[in-house]
Amino acid sequence: MPNISKRGTQMPASPIRRLVPYAEEAKDRGVKVYHLNIGQPDIKTPDVAIAAMHNLDLPVIEYSHSAGIETYRKKLVKHYKGIGVNININQLMVTTGGSEAISLAFLSCLDPGDEVIVPEPFYANYYGFASSTGVKVVPVISDIDTGFALPSFSEIEKLVTKKTKALFICNPNNPTGYLYSREELEQLKKMVLKHNLYLLSDEVYREFCYDDAEHISVMELEGLSEHAVMIDSVSKRYSECGLRIGMLVTRNARIIETAMKFAQARLSPPSLGQIAAEASLETPDSYFKQVNAEYHKRRNFLVEKLNQIPGVFTPMPKGAFYTVARLPVDDADKFCQWILSDFSYKNQTVMMAPASGFYITPGKGKQEVRIAYVLNIEDLSKAIQTLEKGLEAYPGRV
Amino acid sequence: MPNISKRGTQMPASPIRRLVPYAEEAKDRGVKVYHLNIGQPDIKTPDVAIAAMHNLDLPVIEYSHSAGIETYRKKLVKHYKGIGVNININQLMVTTGGSEAISLAFLSCLDPGDEVIVPEPFYANYYGFASSTGVKVVPVISDIDTGFALPSFSEIEKLVTKKTKALFICNPNNPTGYLYSREELEQLKKMVLKHNLYLLSDEVYREFCYDDAEHISVMELEGLSEHAVMIDSVSKRYSECGLRIGMLVTRNARIIETAMKFAQARLSPPSLGQIAAEASLETPDSYFKQVNAEYHKRRNFLVEKLNQIPGVFTPMPKGAFYTVARLPVDDADKFCQWILSDFSYKNQTVMMAPASGFYITPGKGKQEVRIAYVLNIEDLSKAIQTLEKGLEAYPGRV
Repeated sequence: MPNISKRGTQMPASPIRRLVPYAEEAKDRGVKVYHLNIGQPDIKTPDVAIAAMHNLDLPVIEYSHSAGIETYRKKLVKHYKGIGVNININQLMVTTGGSEAISLAFLSCLDPGDEVIVPEPFYANYYGFASSTGVKVVPVISDIDTGFALPSFSEIEKLVTKKTKALFICNPNNPTGYLYSREELEQLKKMVLKHNLYLLSDEVYREFCYDDAEHISVMELEGLSEHAVMIDSVSKRYSECGLRIGMLVTRNARIIETAMKFAQARLSPPSLGQIAAEASLETPDSYFKQVNAEYHKRRNFLVEKLNQIPGVFTPMPKGAFYTVARLPVDDADKFCQWILSDFSYKNQTVMMAPASGFYITPGKGKQEVRIAYVLNIEDLSKAIQTLEKGLEAYPGRV
Repeated sequence: MPNISKRGTQMPASPIRRLVPYAEEAKDRGVKVYHLNIGQPDIKTPDVAIAAMHNLDLPVIEYSHSAGIETYRKKLVKHYKGIGVNININQLMVTTGGSEAISLAFLSCLDPGDEVIVPEPFYANYYGFASSTGVKVVPVISDIDTGFALPSFSEIEKLVTKKTKALFICNPNNPTGYLYSREELEQLKKMVLKHNLYLLSDEVYREFCYDDAEHISVMELEGLSEHAVMIDSVSKRYSECGLRIGMLVTRNARIIETAMKFAQARLSPPSLGQIAAEASLETPDSYFKQVNAEYHKRRNFLVEKLNQIPGVFTPMPKGAFYTVARLPVDDADKFCQWILSDFSYKNQTVMMAPASGFYITPGKGKQEVRIAYVLNIEDLSKAIQTLEKGLEAYPGRV
């Protein structure tokens, strides 16, 4: 039997995926499982997107241009202008989800063995994209006790080597919900200019900022034309995760030219998804107001309730729809499994994402979980109550 | 300014893409350009696929399972059974086009620096997937004068090194239209068993076989459970290139398990495309009969007409909808550009794919072009007449 690749063998399976069978078993026992573990919103997709499919009038569902349907790209330019990101049509590519935009950025900006510095905890799948493109992730630790603020310039700078080619942030952050301040972004700008690095910024949660906090795109920073790369996606903005439509945005023409060579090999992003996404640009403002108000309410409720549970701490996230919470447990991986396999309260239990999946520094985040607030308040309330009761009963409580 | 990656810089731009501006300029001059260069069929997408979109009834367009929508996978198992490929639901994954299935196979079976032997000429984008995954393509030359038959066992075996991990065929072949015989496949089987290799087979043109020729899937060969990997796609079968739905099929559980780790990072294949593709499984047989008859007619017409042009030779392809033709020219790249930029006949011209894009052995295929028969007979007739007149007028004729 031929061997599986080393890179495949070495790639860790996700700690969330490991829990799936336990959740299935709980459901099989008739226990209601509240999913606090996923980034799939329960928010309705805008009607205009569904209508575009109902009105589909194409004899042949053809490949699109490798950079995306031209009318869609033109409208995206206008859309970005509206949020203060001034680019032209040659400075953006439509991709197969934000996922592919990240892979294309890695392929175009970094070679195998090159290093990208990423604030930790970070979105677990970044590690997957790094692994498939041979890029080395170098984590810089942000701490729950300081609300996951960016470490100091000197802390980050310590990690810069000859192999460092990029800094990569997620803003607002998944999993922490942290929103980077202008001051922090200026600090990153100083760093990338000093060390001649790329600054990659995953901004797919841009619309999810609370308390009137301002989101600042890496594309708005002056003097970073050749350095800044924005990753974007329609998945969260319009609750269209299944479309698999994202964008790679940069004013660096050589990145676009290089990414296009890789993108041409895969021919085109999904055509139906692009058509639905193009229609989604007509989503009325009222949709976003309503969604934002709903998440704002959920966040406030969740954070308040979590911090009321003895021994639990979570900072107040300013964006996205996640928070990382520290639990009074020996090991969050074990606890997340136990609460599914050995516990229920009123015939209910909860599934959470152990934070170990968001750290690569050994031992970090051992007591932490990521909680997504993608449930309505009523379900969220029941889920938190169940978590509280679970923590009371858990044998590994510390 | 930071450097672009070496892998990106080194990746060649496609010779077809290089011609696009010349085709655009011809159109701007009012010249009608017949596109013989592309694999985008003009065949209608089945009504059932479009109807699935018209009847779309989803409140939220969610991520699917990373291996694809379960009902779709179940139906695919049945579909494959119908064509003699007996697999279960755990032996297939839905991917983002055949393109992603190839990338996932490379990532899971080969490490950077490992070698895959591919009969040349080969589909140009294989080189792109190899480049993005760090795999080295080792070509084994098949020749136009022997109709692109597979080289002998000993010819192929000469290329096997310690780094060789896989053989990779496209059957029926893009660009040559060659269909592998059972004898040839048994020869490849002997090779992969002797040297403990994977046998990857891109079978996306399976339905396009002519003259009652039998297509034999790599999945039908006995004793290759751990070695055989089939790449599949709905793109050509249902004229659904834009859906970006493909499949990775293998009985080797470790490949599926490994590919899933990479696939989970990109979350899921496109949901709308999967829904349309699932509906497409209900396409009536009459659709395929009609399409096959149409391509059969076009192929016979094209091959006959091409071989009637003085100095032109093309073998009779048994499958797909391409043929590679040798032209009496100094350099097919130059000729393909010249006929777009400096020539027209009755205000028409043709765009073809220079075969240099399908070879990596220097100098090979210099007089060859790939011609796709994705035009109706009337247009095909005008296109060939234009090509004939162009060859008469071309200053670099040999």
